[in-house]
Parts: sequence; C-alpha cells; structure tokens
Amino acid sequence: MVSVAILGHGVVGSGVAEILLTHKQKLFSRIGEEIYIKKVLDLREFPDSPIANRFTKDFEEIINDLEIRVIVEVMGGLHPSYEFVKRSLKAGKSVVTSNKELVAAYGAELLAIAKETNANFLFEASVGGGIPIIRPMNQCLVANIVDEIAGILNGTTNFILTKMIEDGMQFEDALKLAQELGFAERNPAADIEGHDACRKICILASLAFGKHVYPESVHTEGITHITLEDVKYAEKFGCVIKLIGRVKKLSNGKIDIITAPMLVPAKSQLANIDSEFNGIMVRGDCTGDVVFYGKGAGKLPTASAVVADIVDCCQHFKERRFLFWTDGNSSNIIHVNESIFAMYVRVKGADSIAKAEKIFGSVQSISSNGGNRVAFTTEELPYGEFTKKLQQLAADGVEICSTIRIGNL
Amino acid sequence: MVSVAILGHGVVGSGVAEILLTHKQKLFSRIGEEIYIKKVLDLREFPDSPIANRFTKDFEEIINDLEIRVIVEVMGGLHPSYEFVKRSLKAGKSVVTSNKELVAAYGAELLAIAKETNANFLFEASVGGGIPIIRPMNQCLVANIVDEIAGILNGTTNFILTKMIEDGMQFEDALKLAQELGFAERNPAADIEGHDACRKICILASLAFGKHVYPESVHTEGITHITLEDVKYAEKFGCVIKLIGRVKKLSNGKIDIITAPMLVPAKSQLANIDSEFNGIMVRGDCTGDVVFYGKGAGKLPTASAVVADIVDCCQHFKERRFLFWTDGNSSNIIHVNESIFAMYVRVKGADSIAKAEKIFGSVQSISSNGGNRVAFTTEELPYGEFTKKLQQLAADGVEICSTIRIGNL
Repeated sequence: MVSVAILGHGVVGSGVAEILLTHKQKLFSRIGEEIYIKKVLDLREFPDSPIANRFTKDFEEIINDLEIRVIVEVMGGLHPSYEFVKRSLKAGKSVVTSNKELVAAYGAELLAIAKETNANFLFEASVGGGIPIIRPMNQCLVANIVDEIAGILNGTTNFILTKMIEDGMQFEDALKLAQELGFAERNPAADIEGHDACRKICILASLAFGKHVYPESVHTEGITHITLEDVKYAEKFGCVIKLIGRVKKLSNGKIDIITAPMLVPAKSQLANIDSEFNGIMVRGDCTGDVVFYGKGAGKLPTASAVVADIVDCCQHFKERRFLFWTDGNSSNIIHVNESIFAMYVRVKGADSIAKAEKIFGSVQSISSNGGNRVAFTTEELPYGEFTKKLQQLAADGVEICSTIRIGNL
Repeated sequence: MVSVAILGHGVVGSGVAEILLTHKQKLFSRIGEEIYIKKVLDLREFPDSPIANRFTKDFEEIINDLEIRVIVEVMGGLHPSYEFVKRSLKAGKSVVTSNKELVAAYGAELLAIAKETNANFLFEASVGGGIPIIRPMNQCLVANIVDEIAGILNGTTNFILTKMIEDGMQFEDALKLAQELGFAERNPAADIEGHDACRKICILASLAFGKHVYPESVHTEGITHITLEDVKYAEKFGCVIKLIGRVKKLSNGKIDIITAPMLVPAKSQLANIDSEFNGIMVRGDCTGDVVFYGKGAGKLPTASAVVADIVDCCQHFKERRFLFWTDGNSSNIIHVNESIFAMYVRVKGADSIAKAEKIFGSVQSISSNGGNRVAFTTEELPYGEFTKKLQQLAADGVEICSTIRIGNL
C-alpha cells in the first residue's frame, strides 16, 4: 500500500480523490499496490465525502506522517503551496502538482531540492490539463533537439476567441458566457491578460532548453484589446486570432519567447483548435512538428494527469524520473524589440495605405468603408523597428487602431 | 557504456545510427552513460559509413556478445525479425523495434517472453512513427479507461486521399505521385489495401484493452475503390474521406474494431490531418478526447522514436516498463455485420431516392446529372442489416456504385 496525501479538495483535488477511488482496481493492477488516500488537507468540511474521516486542517499531520510518501498539491496559488511543497520535498516525499503558477515561479528551486533528497517532483497537469505533454516532451522527444514550441495554452481565452470568430460575439459578451459556463473565473485577469498562458510556455521552455524561464522575463499580452473588427479582418487575411505562447531557439543560443494574440493561418494545425481545447506544437529536429490536442482544463482531465504522475511516483521511489532544469535568468532571452514578426495593423484615415507603403515598403491591405478603414500586413521585421515605423505612421496623421503579430505557425 | 546492436541498416536503421551518433552528447547527459553501437547487422556492405567496421552479416555474433544489452530490430517483415527478436528476449536482452507487422503478429508472445526474462520489449515507433503515442497512452492515460481509439494511421493513403480531395487527382495519379515522392513503396498493397493501418490499430487496441487483437480478426478495407466522385459528394455532405483505424469498447465488454475508409465530418479533429501526416484520437473516460498529430513515417521521425525507446531501456535495465497484454482471440470482437454505422451510398438510376427511402426510411440525398446520379446517407444501422437492404435496393433496379461508412469522429 502506498499512502498519499492530497493538499486541497477543490475542483482538481476532488477529481483526484474520485479517480483514485473509482479506478482503484485498474491502478492496483498497474502498480501491484493499493494507492491509499491517507489524508486530505482542506480548511473546509466535507461531511458527505466517502473519505470524510480522513480530512485534516493541519499540514503538520501530513508532513510528520512517515507512511505518506506522495504529496499531491492541488491547492493552486503560490502560498502556502510553495512552503508545503518545499517542506515535503525536503522531507524526501515525492510531490505531484497541477499548479502552473508554482512551477513557473519556483520550478528550478523545487527540482533542485527534489534532486538533493532523491525525491520526484512531477507536474504533468500543470500544462495542457489532461493532455500528455510534459512526459512525452521529456521522454519521447529525448532524441530530438527542440527548435520551437507554440501552443494554445489557455482554454478560457480560446473559448472567448472562438465565440468571437464563430458567433460574432463581442469580447465582453463572450467573457460573460465563459463565466456562466464555468470556463472563466469571476476574476478572469490571469486568463484574459495572458498570465496563465505565459506560465505554461515558461514551464515548457524551461523543460525544453534546460534553464528556468521566469514569467517576469516574458513579454505578455492578453486578448482584452481584440475587437470583432480585428477578427473579421483576420478572416479576410485567411487567418484566425489565437492567444499563442511561443518559444523559439535562435542560432545564437538565446531564446525568443512571448505570449501574445497572433493571427494564425487557417491551414495551421493550431488554427482548428477551438473552444476550451488546448493544442501544443513541438518542433523537433528529428520528428518535425508534433501536435498534442485535448481538454486543457476541467476537473477529470486535469485530475487524470495528476493521477498518472502519482502512479509514476509509486513506480519510481528508488530512482528519480529525469525531469530537471537549472536556474536561469533573462540574459539568455532576447528583448521583445528584437523579436521578428510580420505584423497586422488596423488604421483609420485618408491615404493610410499609401502612407504605410512609404514607411513599411510593400504591404498587403484590405479596406472597407470606402477606404477610410483599412487593415494591412507587413513583411517580417524586428518588433522595435516596427514600433518606430508605427510612430512615423501616426505622425503622418494615420490613426492606429490596433496591431497584432502574425504567427508563422 | 551501454552497447547496442542494430538489426538492419535501411531507412529507419540508418536513421537510428545517425541520431545515436549526432545526438551522442545529449543522450549521454540524459543517461549518464554512452550508448555505443557495437554491431550493425546487414547483408549489404556500407564502406562509407563512419561505423563501417562494426557491420556484420552474422546474427550469432550479436546474440552471443554478452556486452550487447539492447537489440534494435529495424529490418521490417516477419522473418527473420521474429526469430531474432525472440532469441534476443530469451537471452534476456532488451529489444526495441519499429516493426508493426511483427508486433501485430507476435506481440503477446514476445511480451510474455520479455516478462519471463525480465527484459524490456518496446515499440513506440511501430505506431505513428515519430508521434509519441504508445508511451503516452500507456503512462499518461493510466488513470483513464479508454473507450475508443480512432486514427489516421497510414501516411501513404492519407497523402493519396489529400491529393484527391485538394487537387482533384485520380487515385492512380495520386498513388504514382506518392511513389515518386517516396511516400509509397513500389508494391503499395500493404498501404492502399489497409493492412498497415490495420496492424497499427491492432497494436493500439491490444495495448488499450489488454488482449492481443490479431489483424486477421479485423475487417479491413483499403482505399482503392474510392473515386473522385465520392470525394466530391463527401464534400457536399460536409465531410472528407479518410482511411480510419478505429476500435471501440462496447457495453457488453466486447470490442468493435475496423479499418476502412470513412466520411469524416469536416469539424472533426481528424478531418484536418492532411498529406503524409498521421493523427490519433484517444477517448478516455476522464480526459475526454486527446489527439496526437505528426509525421507518421520517415527516416528521422521514426528513428527518433526508436532512440527514445533505447534510452528508456538504458534507464530501466533492472525493472521492466509496464507494457503488456495477454494473448487474445476473435471471441471478444464483434462481427463486422454487427458493427453500427451510418452509411454513404452512391447510386445510379431513375427514382433511386424514392426507392432508397422506401427501404432505408429517411435518407439525406444529393443528386447531380438531372437526378440520375445520386448519393445518399442513411441513419445508423448494423452493417449486416445495411447490406441486406442494399441488396433489396439493387433488386429494385438501382445500380449501386459505392458505399462508404460514416465515421462519427
């Protein structure tokens, strides 16, 4: 019997308990031992739970229980998650978490502690919910040098954008619907401002390139400024707008990483990933593009990824899974101004296109409203150069309504 | 240092050698030991190879070399692959293979031997080439009960169908082009008649449901009878035609497994998987649908999956990876006539639709050529019932041109 403790009995935590109980036999036949939920930490009471008598409000009961070998952190947030996980790893207990905020902020430190105490620290569920991505990237792609990762990593924003694209809904209405359907939280900032997607691309970048990438080092834009007008122009340019987390390895050894809405060509495998689904493209030097697709969030999908990690821990108490990166800083990340993109620009004003052509050279344009409202796309150029040229265009009397990167995905 | 031997220096074998040599450092840092190619078995000479002096024509040199702990079988075909792999496993050596024909024909027996001698028998590359699928299914989805697997498992036929759909090419021309581009072999029977896809869905079904499914037990149709006319009608019905391998678990515990061309709704994630790419959908009770997409064949993609398995063997000499199924027979597979599908039917003749409606009840139809050429789709019904009704329709004087299943994917 392997005793585990679950920290948190919210959406994911209750899902983990549910799967461990309902899939008991299947898991037993895999591991050859029962996975026993010895304790669940939560400040609330759950008198109707089949394991109501195993709840505790005191973490000390868990950390001091020598029988508990795996700690499952599914509370979310940074504190006290960080302190609990750190103490658990220091005590030599293996830790499984779905907490992307935690891994993105403290991954390198926690992995180093795990290495020191020969424990496992696994977090498959932190990216892509129920989609297997961390383990395939880490194991199956071991024979590849990863050149690029790009993904739709946040289901809430993808749901909102899909509603805007397919049903012509305004941003605010789509957000409200997402909240009603439970796809968005009451405070949706972390999602719609891109922070959640940023944390996830940071985790994937850290794993792929071996050095921790902190979210603070990554230029991050959300989707709050995307309008229906942009969505419609994008369609005319043969694209859809998606919130993309992307990291690329450059020939100088540095990485180019960003989270931002992008125009994605309709033919891209990422263009067809709709609603609350996530999709992640990993480009390896040997495999070429591999795409993983599925539900990026939700109780049971996420919980099933957590349980897979628990099983992995149970099968590897004596040896560590190879999952590691060292600490890093922003010195190996290029500045957003050096990052090269073709750009989409929506403007207002007479003669906009002639003016744009003078400044940007050749552009592709689509106009409406008798030519007074125009959107154009530029060739690829460094973002810093783009913003300077855009200032010139504004100085020439053209009103800049919006700009969006074009993802060559 | 871990010594390995590679059986076969064809497309995949030379790719494996190439990756082991070019990614030496990366692999070393993962395993902590060098992977050393001690022998390569091939009847041909490769005097220009950087490891020319390690070639042998004699398997005995390999099997009797106690230093060689991992044998990589990438010869393809059943014999002598089967004999070599069996002897290797019996000798306690771990075996990695990309040979789907071998795994589909002898998987249960070889896994049983591997279990007996505490060796590993891994075959990630046998399905989906460079796409991680066996390992994610086996590990990441351990917390799921798999309900259904459906995939585009053969790149050659998908390339041909894509050319028919997108460029309006005839089947023969598309096949010829595939051969010219190296996507199809000179003898393309295994691909275009569906046998290759069938072997792969058998492997996935065996893994998911725990009992060996032999290709002989699976109803298999290829794409040779698909015409441009069908492709165009499919489009009008909002579908594309894809060669699908599919297995479903039924409530009576039996499985429904088939390899056949199907009309796939354009909105399905499998509909957008084009050209030589493969895509595999796994439906779990917890995760919902997860889709894996990438290059299903080719030298380096396939070789990179083989190398990932070699690494896994090197990390697990003392314990076996859990990858197992027992022998099986056709008794737990329903007969093709019991399998339920909505059907697409293309016919010729006056009053075809009125006659079809009398026999099939409500149908959806699209006609051309002044109503003399018609395609219709039926409601879902058991395939045996469908063929009987089709005979009635023919007896009523309607010429049956083609029938294709509609995949509810």
